[in-house]
Amino acid sequence: MKILKTIEDLKRERQTWTGTVGFVPTMGYLHEGHLSLVERSLQDNDDTVVSVFVNPTQFAAGEDLDRYPRDLERDGRLLAEMGVTALFLPDNREVYPEGFSTFVVVEKLSDVLCGRSRPTHFRGVTTVVLKLFQLVRPDRAYFGQKDAQQAIIIKRMIRDLHLPVRLVVLPIVRDQDGLALSSRNEYLSKKERASALCLPRALSGARFMISEGVDDASRVVERIDKELKREEGVVVDYIAVVDLKRLEPLQTVLADNTLVAAAIRVGNTRLIDNFILGEI
Amino acid sequence: MKILKTIEDLKRERQTWTGTVGFVPTMGYLHEGHLSLVERSLQDNDDTVVSVFVNPTQFAAGEDLDRYPRDLERDGRLLAEMGVTALFLPDNREVYPEGFSTFVVVEKLSDVLCGRSRPTHFRGVTTVVLKLFQLVRPDRAYFGQKDAQQAIIIKRMIRDLHLPVRLVVLPIVRDQDGLALSSRNEYLSKKERASALCLPRALSGARFMISEGVDDASRVVERIDKELKREEGVVVDYIAVVDLKRLEPLQTVLADNTLVAAAIRVGNTRLIDNFILGEI
Repeated sequence: MKILKTIEDLKRERQTWTGTVGFVPTMGYLHEGHLSLVERSLQDNDDTVVSVFVNPTQFAAGEDLDRYPRDLERDGRLLAEMGVTALFLPDNREVYPEGFSTFVVVEKLSDVLCGRSRPTHFRGVTTVVLKLFQLVRPDRAYFGQKDAQQAIIIKRMIRDLHLPVRLVVLPIVRDQDGLALSSRNEYLSKKERASALCLPRALSGARFMISEGVDDASRVVERIDKELKREEGVVVDYIAVVDLKRLEPLQTVLADNTLVAAAIRVGNTRLIDNFILGEI
Repeated sequence: MKILKTIEDLKRERQTWTGTVGFVPTMGYLHEGHLSLVERSLQDNDDTVVSVFVNPTQFAAGEDLDRYPRDLERDGRLLAEMGVTALFLPDNREVYPEGFSTFVVVEKLSDVLCGRSRPTHFRGVTTVVLKLFQLVRPDRAYFGQKDAQQAIIIKRMIRDLHLPVRLVVLPIVRDQDGLALSSRNEYLSKKERASALCLPRALSGARFMISEGVDDASRVVERIDKELKREEGVVVDYIAVVDLKRLEPLQTVLADNTLVAAAIRVGNTRLIDNFILGEI
């Protein structure tokens, strides 16, 4: 596996890949969720590039940029063992040199759900993803459904800007206790982790309710809210039942076009989870 | 010359161009300024694509979108005679389909000079240019120095987003009376046109002054201001002496990094002109 630290290195290597290229952009501290994306990219493409870059523009002041967990050695070892072609590891100066001032914004979709509590977050995501797409020029890019809103926004950006890349969204990978894998789970104390389980439990309850025929979105929200509020030390950020294209609130759950998503805070840690009916 | 009206048509044709591709994006109603860009693209590249699209997102409400001059038949004839490979003529729905919501913004550079009186203008420009770049995938793109700020912003966007295209900026083409060619000159009455000549006259005076050794930017601005204000019926929008990279005001004119630009209103028509020391 090549380890590429500069844009020039990446550009030079890119020219040698003449088949299909798969791309998995990450912030590192890889877990089985990331690895499922890498695995699939390796199956689908001649070459696979993984980037590890903790992107400062998607963190607001006061968020966890500085303490975001990092373990480059382990990440590199795992990816090399899997047979990844190249690991792109740029530093901040490489991605955002002096004078940098261009941003890509997907309006509306970026302002709701997670965008409401993190107003500049998705702008940072779309900007860095567009930059990486231009450099890697992948045929396919792999994202996890865990960040459903992110995947939906990137899909919109790809369509609006005519980017020649296919988005592949893969299912949420969960730990044995049901918690969706996230690098941020690292922050949780044992007690907080136990509390955090209310999130998958609430969503799984809502999913069951819908499968039993309930399609009133407000009842679904209520059910989730009740389950989350029962748990001490958990603060609800949002609960949303929205359509998969515009992320607009639904009154009635649609069998093929619904995102049910929630975000909570447990102590200092913000966690998200979701399920979908239909396809991103 | 192929006339391509849909994105699908353009994508299909694009696959058949295997050499270098030059691209001249325009809003049509072509004049010698546009044609100088086309001429140069034809010299530099195996294939040349010209787009004619009066881009609604770069006009604010109340601006001249509806009355912007159009003459597609003449534009097509001129380009065909010159030997252009393809003319891309999308309509609004093709470029901005329902649900469109992604915008590219170059911060700071888009907020000054023309951006001060037209706050959403450059966002519209960078968005449509990025879209066109993704579709045409040109090796070189040609812009006129008449819209110096636009060229500087696009240069920044290309660099920031790693777009694989080379920007070529060509000199302002002027009419015999000195007025910089612009599709908007069409709006001027005979009397307004005579008044408008204060703009090239003022800039040419400033240029002479600098060539004689004056490097105090405030004196240059004063000289231009005096010349413009002498003309009845002319309203000064801005006069700027700024550096070519950041568009920040200069105290001292720099021999290799200065843009001297001005915008005026003559009746309902807004006109811009400039000269540079150095290179965009």
